Formats: sequence, C-alpha cells, structure tokens
Amino acid sequence: MTDTADLSDTRYNQLAEQLADAIRRGTLAPGSRLPSVRRSAQTWSVSINTVVAAYRRLEDRGFIEARPQSGFYVRAALPALNHQPHEQPQTPAAEPADEVLDLIDKVFASQIDPTYTNLSLACPQSNDFYPTGKLGRIMSSLLRRQPNLIGQYALPPGSPVLRQQIARRALTLGMILEPADITITHGCMEALQLALRVTTKPGDSVGLETPTYFYLLPMLASLGLKAVEIPTDPQTGLSLDVLEMLLAEKRLNAVIAMPTAQNPLGFTMPLAAKKRLARLMNDHQVPLIEDGLYAEIQFGATLSPAVKSFDRYGWILFCTSFTKTLAPDFRIGWVEGGRFADKLHKLKAVSSMAESALLSQTLAVFLESGGYDHHLRALRKRYASQVEQARALIARHFPQGTRATQPAGGFVIWVDFPPGVDCVTLFHQLLKDKICMTPGQLYSPSGRYSNGLRLSCCYVFDTRYISAMIRIGQRACEMCGLPPGLAETQEQAEESRTS
Amino acid sequence: MTDTADLSDTRYNQLAEQLADAIRRGTLAPGSRLPSVRRSAQTWSVSINTVVAAYRRLEDRGFIEARPQSGFYVRAALPALNHQPHEQPQTPAAEPADEVLDLIDKVFASQIDPTYTNLSLACPQSNDFYPTGKLGRIMSSLLRRQPNLIGQYALPPGSPVLRQQIARRALTLGMILEPADITITHGCMEALQLALRVTTKPGDSVGLETPTYFYLLPMLASLGLKAVEIPTDPQTGLSLDVLEMLLAEKRLNAVIAMPTAQNPLGFTMPLAAKKRLARLMNDHQVPLIEDGLYAEIQFGATLSPAVKSFDRYGWILFCTSFTKTLAPDFRIGWVEGGRFADKLHKLKAVSSMAESALLSQTLAVFLESGGYDHHLRALRKRYASQVEQARALIARHFPQGTRATQPAGGFVIWVDFPPGVDCVTLFHQLLKDKICMTPGQLYSPSGRYSNGLRLSCCYVFDTRYISAMIRIGQRACEMCGLPPGLAETQEQAEESRTS
Repeated sequence: MTDTADLSDTRYNQLAEQLADAIRRGTLAPGSRLPSVRRSAQTWSVSINTVVAAYRRLEDRGFIEARPQSGFYVRAALPALNHQPHEQPQTPAAEPADEVLDLIDKVFASQIDPTYTNLSLACPQSNDFYPTGKLGRIMSSLLRRQPNLIGQYALPPGSPVLRQQIARRALTLGMILEPADITITHGCMEALQLALRVTTKPGDSVGLETPTYFYLLPMLASLGLKAVEIPTDPQTGLSLDVLEMLLAEKRLNAVIAMPTAQNPLGFTMPLAAKKRLARLMNDHQVPLIEDGLYAEIQFGATLSPAVKSFDRYGWILFCTSFTKTLAPDFRIGWVEGGRFADKLHKLKAVSSMAESALLSQTLAVFLESGGYDHHLRALRKRYASQVEQARALIARHFPQGTRATQPAGGFVIWVDFPPGVDCVTLFHQLLKDKICMTPGQLYSPSGRYSNGLRLSCCYVFDTRYISAMIRIGQRACEMCGLPPGLAETQEQAEESRTS
Repeated sequence: MTDTADLSDTRYNQLAEQLADAIRRGTLAPGSRLPSVRRSAQTWSVSINTVVAAYRRLEDRGFIEARPQSGFYVRAALPALNHQPHEQPQTPAAEPADEVLDLIDKVFASQIDPTYTNLSLACPQSNDFYPTGKLGRIMSSLLRRQPNLIGQYALPPGSPVLRQQIARRALTLGMILEPADITITHGCMEALQLALRVTTKPGDSVGLETPTYFYLLPMLASLGLKAVEIPTDPQTGLSLDVLEMLLAEKRLNAVIAMPTAQNPLGFTMPLAAKKRLARLMNDHQVPLIEDGLYAEIQFGATLSPAVKSFDRYGWILFCTSFTKTLAPDFRIGWVEGGRFADKLHKLKAVSSMAESALLSQTLAVFLESGGYDHHLRALRKRYASQVEQARALIARHFPQGTRATQPAGGFVIWVDFPPGVDCVTLFHQLLKDKICMTPGQLYSPSGRYSNGLRLSCCYVFDTRYISAMIRIGQRACEMCGLPPGLAETQEQAEESRTS
C-alpha cells in the first residue's frame, strides 16, 4: 500500500484531501469559487507551490475546474444512477445470444492483453495492492518446515485450519458458521458453480439481478439453466416484490444474488431488505446463492451483514473468495452450503477433488497472524478513493446526461450514457485506442443496457488511466453529439430521483 | 527416492534382486529348492548373514517360502486375472445406487483417516516419493524474484510456460500437441469433468470400461449422464467389437477410457487395439476422453503411446495431471481438447477460471530443468517392485482360487476372490481392524464385482502393510472356508487362460 501512503504523507495531498472533504460535505458548494492561490497559501501557512499542487490534484480528480482569468470553481456533483426498475420479470432466456458470447471473448482477450489500458478486468494485477511479501514469506517458511505438504494429496472438503479461520472471520459479516459446513473451492467462481449444481438440475430457472456478474450467464448456459432477470434498483437492489411474486408462483428453482457491494452496480441492499430477502427464501424453501465476493470491501464505517446471517433453515448458501482481497493467484474461495453442505462437500470431491493444502495453509497462517484487518482497511480506503476519482473524471469528461453509480463498496462503476451512445460500438472504437472496458450488454441475458458500461477502478489512476477516461468521454461525446461536462443539472437529477 | 536407493545399495538387497530376476525368468522354477545358505555364501562370496537377509527379503516379498527342516523353495507364480468378458453391454444406469454412494463415503472417510492402514487411497502421502525439496526451492526462489505472482489474477487457459513444457513432454507418449490447444485444469478430475461437459449434454450416454475409476460414476450422475458399461478384458482392455457395435447403433455420445495402465485393472491396451480405438472414434465422430493419469508410470522399457497419438480429426481429448507423478498437493492437470479445445478453454473460464500461476510456473521450471525423467524412472522402479511384493503376499496369504492382475503400470492391483467372499462385508470387517481397501462393487454402476477388491500399493511395504495384507487374507479365508496359499494350480491357470 506504498502508493497511497506516500501520497497522503505529502503536505499538498493533505490539503487536497481536506478540500475534497469540504466539497463532499457541501461546505464548499458546487459552483462556488475557491480562495485564490495566494490567499490559500497565507491561510494555511504553506508555499504557493503546495497550493498549486493541491488544486491541480483536485482538478485531476474532478472536484474543481479552472476557469481562465477567473480562478478555481467547485464542480457540481455527479448525479447518482437511478434506474427505472423493470416491473415485470423477463422471459427466461436459456442461453445468451451468440453475439454476446463472441463479445465476452473479445472483452476477455483485451482484458488479459497488457498492451491495453485496462478498465475492464476486476483485478489490479499489481503487487502493491496485496501483502505478497508476507504471504511469500509464510509460504517459504511452510515449505521449509513441512516439505511434505507438496507430496500429499489435497483432500476435500479442504484445509481444516483454513476453514477454522474462515468461520472466525465470518463473524465480521454477522455469520455464525460451522467449519464443518464450509467447502474450500477454486475461487468464488467454482463456489457459485457448485452451489448452482447442488441446488438445481438442467432445465431449472434461476432468478438473478439485472444487470448481473456477466460470467454468470455463460455459466448458467453451460449448466442448462434458464436465467430469469429480476428488476434491480441501483440503490436498493433486487426488487423483493417481484421476487416474492415469482416465488409464490413457483417459477424459480434458485436465486443467485450479490446483496453487498454488487457487481456491477455497487449497491448494498438496506438491512431491512436483506432481512426480508432471507425470510422470503426460507418461507418459500428456495435456495439463495449469496455471492459475497466484495462484502469485505465495503466503504462504510461498519460492515453491512451478509443475508446469510439472517438465514433460519439453511436455505442460503454463502460464496466468496480471497481472490479480490488477498491473493488473486491462489484462487482459494469457499462456500457455506447451508442445508446443502454435505451434498456440496461430495460434489466438490467428484468435480475437482480439493484445493492445495500449501496455499490454504499459507492463507490460514496469514489470517491467524491478524494482519488481515489492517490490510482490508487500507484496501477499502484505496478503492474508495479511486472510485471517487473515476466518478470525478466521468463528471468532467463524459457527455452531458451521463449518470454513474455511487458504489457502496468494491471498485467498479456502472455508467449510463445518454441516448445515442451504443456501448458495443464504443467498445470496438476504444479497442483501436488500446483501451479496454466492459460494455453493458454483457450484463443481461436479454442484451439490454446498450448505453451502459462498467468501469473497473482497481488500477492506480496515473496519467495513463486519466487519459483513457478522457478518451472514453471524447468518443462518447462524438457519438451522441453532446458536449462533455456534468451529466445532468441538479434539477434534472432531483427530478429523476423523485420520478 | 532415498528409500529405494538405500535398499538397493546394500549387498543383501542386490543378491535378493538377482534371485528375484532368476525366479521371474524361470531359471529358478516354481517348486524348486534354493541352494543352502552356506553354499550360497560360498558361491557369491558373501557372509552367511547376507544370504539370510536376502532370503528373508525374498520370503517377505513372497518369492520363496521356508519349509521347516528342508530349506527355501520357490513359490509358484500367481495366475493372472482372466475375466470372462461380458459380451453384452449393460443397460444404462443413470445413477449409482444409494448404497454405492454411501459406500463411497465410507471408503473415502477411511482413506483420509491416518489411523487406518491405507490400501485404498491412490497416493503415497509420503514425502520421499516426490522431489518436494527441489519443488519447494523452485517455489521459494520464484516468490523472491517475482512476489507479484501472488498478486496477479490467474488467467485461463493457464500458464503459457507450463503449456509449452507439457507439449514438449507429450512427445514421450507419441503426442504432437499445440500449447494453444492445452487447458490447464484443477487436476485430472476437473480435466475429465470439463471434457465430459464439453462433449455431452444431460441425458446423454457415455461408454466406459468395467470396472472403471470409481469416482467417474458419481461424476457422471452429477452431470445427468448415463453410464454404459463396455466389457473390458483385464489384459487387452475395452472390447472394441462391442464398442464398434454401440457406435454403429449410435448409442454412445462419448466414451471415456484409460487405455494405458488402467485403474483399477492395470492393463495397457495392445498397440493395434489403441490404433483401432482411435480409428473407430474418428470414423464414427464420437469423442473419446482418454484418461492418461498413469501413462507416465508404465513398467515396460518403452512407453506405450497414447491413443491420442493416433487421433486424426481431433475426436480424442487427452486428460492427465501431475498429481500422481510430481506434486499431489498442487492439483495441476491438463486436457488437450482436440476439436473441442476452444470450447474447453471457455468452459474452464466460466467454471473455475484458471489455475495458480505460481504453482504452474514451479512445475514448468522443474520440467525445464530436466530432472523429471530421472524422477519418473525411480518412481516406476519403486512402484513396480511394490506391486510385485503385494502380488507375492496375495499368492501366499489370500485364499486358494484368488486371482490378481499383473499391472503394466501404476500402483493398483485388482483381486478376484473365489466364491464366498463378499468384499463389501470384508470391507466392513477390515474397518474394525483399522485397514482400508476399496471393494469391487464401487467400480461398476450396476454394482457387479462383489468378490473383487482394489489394493493400492503406493505405500512403503513395511511391517504394518505386510501385516495388513496378511489380515485381509485371513478374513477372506475365514469367509470362504478355503485355506490360504496359491490361488490356482498352474494347470487351472492355464485352463482359465485358454478357455
């Protein structure tokens, strides 16, 4: 976490932070003029250069704008995205269309190509985001003391010491879990895959958020499952009224959802909604597969508990991984299978057997050593700051009328462009600029969201990334013919919020 | 491999080896008397103690027996198993019976319990079978030089350097493979699972050997696939006549087989049969999933090539892993998907994403360093010797009329008891003795082979294991009322071979 630490230690950066806070709180209102550089230098007893650097940083981050011959002004806030929920659930679509699958391939190819400026892949690919040094030392020490670990068969349901640590950690999200009910999996993705296989059979219907984690769609198709889109509000999540209706009509065999720091919308469901969701699933005895992948990267002061923590009769299966928080390469995830725990242990055994004891124990030793919370706090702060920076760049450079989410956690932003911007076309244009983002159409089996896109803000926002954001804005402005600048006026935003 | 090395360096052991060779070649015929200890000491210019130790070793391994007041005699050879092939393929069985699944659980629970003497789990669980020290040093060095490996996302289809090394190594089994067609998987089991998913859909029928790798049966059931048992000869493998008939009648959507060092029968199909198998699958355009898990642990001087090496139009998918040969804990396997390679890459990505780059590169560096062939030679020699030792113990302690396979590779032996021995009952009796083996019924979806069992001979045959083998023999003798000793007379064996 050296980058954040270095920057925050410099005086100009402290100043920029204080001003950003003032803007966030409204002390410095949108449109108001900042004190002149000279006056600020006097007020805060710093050099003129420090103030200039602080103002430039605020400008880079989109908080303020320079007006020639006039000074620096506070930019208007970016209005939050406020989807019109689709009140009717969609016709089940057994498989995503071929063009969607082709598009997924293209997105994936650009994600893994290091020559692209990557605003698509949800992983920083950078070693200063993770305690790689400490993990490496733990592993080397294990290899010295227990060389036999390599020579032993990795056995299901996975390392007992890691399952113990996971159960201990789960309390921070409100879950009281038994290590015996936890299966160690190959990342969160295998956890989801096994949870689906253990709760459904081919031909079944699975309710999901729309937009949803886009790899879910080909995963469901590969298992012969039908996706049923449930209207999803960008602030409050899954429409529980629609869900209740679908459950009452017995049209769902399982539901898969991300109630905390959702990918791609970033919302966390309100507590009351989480409780109602848990109650609905238990009442109707339909399994909920809760994807908690980003639940430990919440930005709020206290962590919103998992829906699983309100589970009564084991109808909720909780899936997550250390891939986003600790060691992407290890791909160690886990699932607590509720009433399906036994079946899950067995399916893992006949599906891919078990996870490496060496990798599992490395994580367990790290978790036991107590450095995890410290690491998570730094990671949350860093991602919160990067998300804010990206939102500021959107407000400044994307076409008027653009709306963007205000994530409660994670590191992705969902952007809705005004009419006229087709994001698949935009995606292909940006590939020529060696910029990679994820077009909205991938996030729904029915291919909606043609003017939406997801930006992954897990990279350090250096000049290269700032230029890429500006370039996306330019391309989008060209496409819709609107000038860049604040997406909506405050009045429009208010109106859209209340409508 | 210190154990083998130490033993083979001692004089008495060399002498025992030479005598064992002479017995194998027939120079010392079954029933003949060995020279007296005194005379042997003179002949070979060694001490009397050395000769005694060598004879004791041969006795332990079942080559010779002491007759009181008379001397040491060469034991008769154990007749090879000669199944009567089941000429008609079996009715498809969609799922193994519940009692079979329960039994698998019980077997599994005993396999992973270290208080049992384990003749069931096909993994030594001992560090002197693998180059764990060298692998550990490679990994520690990678962690020091590239700490970032931990912090990066493991991406499909897997480490390019490892895929390169795999393609290079595949030549030893006659396969010319493109690294681009190889998917790195989570062990051979995930390779098989993905290969099945990519070539079939729920409700399809999959032809398999009988007996077969027993975890295949719940795996097929979990994927909604029907198992069709194809008669399998313990010396020549899959009945290709039956297979051809089934293919001609379009009754199979895929075939899964282990043509080299098969688990559990140990046979390697003759070369001509392998060629015919490849031709049949290509002619009928039905995918063959070739499980090559033990193909590198063949006992013969030259390696029998994979069926994949005779593939013409990409209808053969080759699956294997480094789990049995190098690093059980890593669970790094691979599949070459033939004409399904692209589909396989994609399914892996939406099923469990990718394998750890750290583990993959550790293997790649080891493979590149050239120590693998040396290691494999030692492993083959060791397993060949242990299998022989187990066969000798079977000949000596199991009931008359018992037959056992003569494996061409791997480290498992299949035993057929005479009528009266029910191996599920025997399994439960042996659990009380804290001995764990695998009853034959698990190896067939229709639950045949009630008098068969599989013994895994991958452990060092110390006193504990020898006692366990003797105990199995005692229990079986009690059950059928037959005395221990050579299973069949030579005449009976000849007769059963020609019948």
